[in-house]
Amino acid sequence: MTTSIEAAEVAPAARAAMLEQVEQRLRELIAVERARWCAVDPRADQPIGVVGDLLLSGGKRIRPMFCLTGYLAVGGDPGSAAAVDAAAATELLQAFALLHDDVLDNSMLRRGQPTAHVRWAAEHERLGWAGEARRFGEGVAILAGDLAFSWSDRLAVTMSPAARLVWNDLRTEMIMGQSLDIAVAAEQVADPELARWIALCKSGHYTIHRPLLLGATLAGRPDLTGAFEEYGLAVGEAFQLRDDLIDAFGDGAAGKPPGLDFDGHKMTLLLALVVQRDRQVRELVRQGGRDAHKLRDLLVTAGVRADVEKHIDDLVATARRAIAAAPLPEVWRDELADLAGRVAYRDR
Amino acid sequence: MTTSIEAAEVAPAARAAMLEQVEQRLRELIAVERARWCAVDPRADQPIGVVGDLLLSGGKRIRPMFCLTGYLAVGGDPGSAAAVDAAAATELLQAFALLHDDVLDNSMLRRGQPTAHVRWAAEHERLGWAGEARRFGEGVAILAGDLAFSWSDRLAVTMSPAARLVWNDLRTEMIMGQSLDIAVAAEQVADPELARWIALCKSGHYTIHRPLLLGATLAGRPDLTGAFEEYGLAVGEAFQLRDDLIDAFGDGAAGKPPGLDFDGHKMTLLLALVVQRDRQVRELVRQGGRDAHKLRDLLVTAGVRADVEKHIDDLVATARRAIAAAPLPEVWRDELADLAGRVAYRDR
Repeated sequence: MTTSIEAAEVAPAARAAMLEQVEQRLRELIAVERARWCAVDPRADQPIGVVGDLLLSGGKRIRPMFCLTGYLAVGGDPGSAAAVDAAAATELLQAFALLHDDVLDNSMLRRGQPTAHVRWAAEHERLGWAGEARRFGEGVAILAGDLAFSWSDRLAVTMSPAARLVWNDLRTEMIMGQSLDIAVAAEQVADPELARWIALCKSGHYTIHRPLLLGATLAGRPDLTGAFEEYGLAVGEAFQLRDDLIDAFGDGAAGKPPGLDFDGHKMTLLLALVVQRDRQVRELVRQGGRDAHKLRDLLVTAGVRADVEKHIDDLVATARRAIAAAPLPEVWRDELADLAGRVAYRDR
Repeated sequence: MTTSIEAAEVAPAARAAMLEQVEQRLRELIAVERARWCAVDPRADQPIGVVGDLLLSGGKRIRPMFCLTGYLAVGGDPGSAAAVDAAAATELLQAFALLHDDVLDNSMLRRGQPTAHVRWAAEHERLGWAGEARRFGEGVAILAGDLAFSWSDRLAVTMSPAARLVWNDLRTEMIMGQSLDIAVAAEQVADPELARWIALCKSGHYTIHRPLLLGATLAGRPDLTGAFEEYGLAVGEAFQLRDDLIDAFGDGAAGKPPGLDFDGHKMTLLLALVVQRDRQVRELVRQGGRDAHKLRDLLVTAGVRADVEKHIDDLVATARRAIAAAPLPEVWRDELADLAGRVAYRDR
């Protein structure tokens, strides 16, 4: 009991301190790389600045949070620089994912700012540079993403071989999820099962499950694999449904215009779920009619929105049950239960 | 003397056998990933097929060759699976580089075949899929590149920490070289020094020096750093000049149309060298007149082409001197000297 009480006093502060170190590590890496490459030529700051701006523009840090939670929950050393590096690596990887995603989806805004490819295409045009502005802007964003990818691995250099296997799975899953996403959008495949699989790949595994597992593996505790997977997939699905709800009904406060995915003919997780549950929506989607306003209205009038909220409640309950049964200190079971709610019921 | 003679009998066969294992490793990785992801959905083969086709369409395998040469030259174990994996990793990384490069440069052909983004844009159009064909084609190529990047690291999982540092440098250098390349092309910067630096980054370090060093580091021999750097930068410069000559005067047998870089307003290494040596070419480039035919004619009539061939001879001599003084078995000094010539005087 004493250890439990001690842990209760120490744990959250330890994670907050480690998350602060993650921020320092990210700032430091950008500063070192900027100094190194801008000494060659100031133009090196084009891709480096893109990565730096995105990293330091206030992401939710959800992956570092789950990585360090997984790490500390199983008894990892709060003084470990390797764990801080791994958590920072997940955030750099996310910068890579966002930069390439925004090119793939031609998104205009990210965290309230013009996306990198849009910004650099405009700069190219403004300065009358040679070649095509669009290709240049997208080139800067692609290479900035590539840089973020290679840097994320610079931080992963101290990972144990077991942790590297998790890290490799996490990366391939995310890229394959993204690949199937653009394939399904192009072919307008209305397959709710496939849509759900893609969403679980991108949110369940990549965002929650693998970061948690990465943390636990870094601490040398592979026995949590089952519990963390069950928890991660449930919270990941809730995370993605909330994302889709914010996208469909939000006010754009998340820094991107609402309704984008609806208009983009994407089979979102929300849509996949609703297609399975509601005949009217199923018909609308089958006919290829993807009018964002009509869909939104239907989701409200058919009571589907309330239905989805109920489903999110169930997912949070599932996650909490999985964690309640796990061999973890009480303070961390409570923390993980709390995190599930914070992710599922966030408003941005 | 006995060891030297024994090594002479064993060495080349050992490298050939290891290079054959590199091919197997690459085929195996593609097959495993294809089976794994196509079980989810056959559309997974879009990016996986792109990587597989490119890998198995007959590249020169120059980086695996230098990696294994560096490894065996310093006494590495020819039975090492980790060395085979590292060599295969350099080839997968090159697949990543080519896929993204071709999008950045909008290249139409690669190794005699339509490039990935061109092929998938055409497929999108042919099948009347939703969204923009160009964005989809480029999306498939970008994600295929990302996959190759993440898989290259799957093969790097067994590298020692020291080797991983070399691996990290190799990756960042290549991406930064590429970034400065598109920046310089957009601004039409006619700075021969910067152009030379970019070429050395992309060819000297990325193609020759770092693969050699990676091999030596895997074998636990950091003492070759100086010799391999001198050799690698000289051979890398010769490699790039030959590339530029093939591009400027070639018949397209290399699988891409000749003159592309000339037309693309790039300050190639060839051009950078010639601008420094020839007043007429300097004037032409300064005026922004980058007529490919005129440039080509000038390079011949002003005797610049012969001059560049002489410079390549000097580079090969420099590389051979660096290696002649290195603490390596005679058979490997001879092999490295021979490789320098093969790279510098190749015809495709």
